[in-house]
Amino acid sequence: MRKKFAVGIDLGATNVKYGLISSDGKVLYGTLQPLPESKNRRRVWEVIHSAMAEVLNRAQSQKRKISHIGIGSPGTVNFLTGKVQGFSPNLPFWIGVNLKQGINRRFPEYEVFADNDANVMALAEYQLGAGRGFKDILCLTLGTGIGGGLILNGKLYRGSRYFGGEFGHMPIRYQGRRCLCGGKGCVEAYASVPALLREIRSLLRRRRDSVLKDWLRGDSKKLTSQLVMEAFKLGDEVATEAVDRLVEALAAGIVGVVNLLNPEAVIIGGGLADSGEVFIKRIRMAVRERGMSSNTRGLKILRAKLGNRAGFIGAALLGWQRGKESQR
Amino acid sequence: MRKKFAVGIDLGATNVKYGLISSDGKVLYGTLQPLPESKNRRRVWEVIHSAMAEVLNRAQSQKRKISHIGIGSPGTVNFLTGKVQGFSPNLPFWIGVNLKQGINRRFPEYEVFADNDANVMALAEYQLGAGRGFKDILCLTLGTGIGGGLILNGKLYRGSRYFGGEFGHMPIRYQGRRCLCGGKGCVEAYASVPALLREIRSLLRRRRDSVLKDWLRGDSKKLTSQLVMEAFKLGDEVATEAVDRLVEALAAGIVGVVNLLNPEAVIIGGGLADSGEVFIKRIRMAVRERGMSSNTRGLKILRAKLGNRAGFIGAALLGWQRGKESQR
Repeated sequence: MRKKFAVGIDLGATNVKYGLISSDGKVLYGTLQPLPESKNRRRVWEVIHSAMAEVLNRAQSQKRKISHIGIGSPGTVNFLTGKVQGFSPNLPFWIGVNLKQGINRRFPEYEVFADNDANVMALAEYQLGAGRGFKDILCLTLGTGIGGGLILNGKLYRGSRYFGGEFGHMPIRYQGRRCLCGGKGCVEAYASVPALLREIRSLLRRRRDSVLKDWLRGDSKKLTSQLVMEAFKLGDEVATEAVDRLVEALAAGIVGVVNLLNPEAVIIGGGLADSGEVFIKRIRMAVRERGMSSNTRGLKILRAKLGNRAGFIGAALLGWQRGKESQR
Repeated sequence: MRKKFAVGIDLGATNVKYGLISSDGKVLYGTLQPLPESKNRRRVWEVIHSAMAEVLNRAQSQKRKISHIGIGSPGTVNFLTGKVQGFSPNLPFWIGVNLKQGINRRFPEYEVFADNDANVMALAEYQLGAGRGFKDILCLTLGTGIGGGLILNGKLYRGSRYFGGEFGHMPIRYQGRRCLCGGKGCVEAYASVPALLREIRSLLRRRRDSVLKDWLRGDSKKLTSQLVMEAFKLGDEVATEAVDRLVEALAAGIVGVVNLLNPEAVIIGGGLADSGEVFIKRIRMAVRERGMSSNTRGLKILRAKLGNRAGFIGAALLGWQRGKESQR
């Protein structure tokens, strides 16, 4: 059988990652183009189109036939129509965009598949990453926001109107903080990067000793989640306390899904997960402590394997899923 | 085509409901037998076997051929093996029982299907009750405990090891009350009948005026959820405040599922739902207020239709589900 190839695109808040993938999951090429600081619809489309022109040229020069294009995007995406429908705090102007039409406008000769960024990440990890061999998994990305994707019975579960998977907006403290989504006490309000940084700032104001104080030298704007996770791995007390609080909230959200859906595995990716196994281990312990033992016994909590390539890989895979027409 | 018939059994904490159902969902006969106050495995089996003997005799005298027997039971039930595995606070001695073997011991000639009580309720409401016409639903029973059943893509979703559906044990206040399940801040700890009664007692101690005080005449042991819901419907302040608190917690749990799974409908049954549409309306409002608008728009929140017959009807239906062999 001749190999097939597809283009995968992962639109993020700061850049467009993309690449060329073969149907057996090999990444033949992968790169990114930054988005401009000041963004609007037109500018984002310019970057996407330029990225696509580049990768399609490359494929042509290598005589590789492209079977389709897949794109993962922030916001909730209607998989059938390609329209961005829901909540997209980092790219608010993107709501209402039609991803399929936007791509076909410049490149009418290709079939286009479009889905939510966390969904395509889940698909990639399921087929080629940490989720291989499982049939029921929850995939999370921990970053500025918290994204979720569900594989149930071996298929991406999108919900009745394609708005499923919003793990970040499950309430874990029902009388708690207001969330941008309109809800209250969502996981995202306690376990995202902004929540972590807020916690650190508040602890630093109250306490004296932390390696973070030395690193920041009074400029708290320099604080990043990478620095916090470095300090956490060194055993810094302030960082450890803040990470433990984040883990407690995150674990409660995971336990909600584990008790409700009894998945085989939870796969954790995104910026915070990059800090490594120590962090995942804490999550694992907190979930075991709180979850129903029937549901946590045998449950795997694993770090995502594909890193920041998961998005464009999963986007390319959208066109090769079994029974893709009937999926919801 | 000749009609087929099945026996359905619904084991509860205080009685065994059972009946004879035709494959097109008609209840030809339905009744119950109480369980003794002091219960153990042997006594529960005696009641189940006596109920089955009665209904099978009746079917025989009417010359109706029984195609199978279905049973819904508290605890998490392994659908394949028939074993009660998980958490069962109301019938703790029941864990470890094998439902299929227990029935076949006395009635070896029938194929037996067994599942969790909330799952069979969900199946009945989906096929014959308030869930007809939807493909993705969450079914809840509000009582001493809070049970949950999920229909996803038109099929009962059981999870990877049959422990799915535990809506009552999703954390909604992650630093909150300890729950019997080992977790913290579960929906059940805030939205079950015991939680409601505790709230009422605490309010009555602090306030003077409530119709409940007149009804109870100082004997707070007489307090029941029925009385509370009566007072709530009369507009009693104490009852309204307690019900509103319960609704707030329950709605947070529902929002978690709605944001995660984007179902078409949530169906609410069990003792508390019997109090009627006013109560359901409050839940509907609270869910709309907190949920992501993309996911609550078009969402139906409905009262269960089959009442306390849903359990044995759904149990009988277990044997007639499409593709039942491969279901998990």
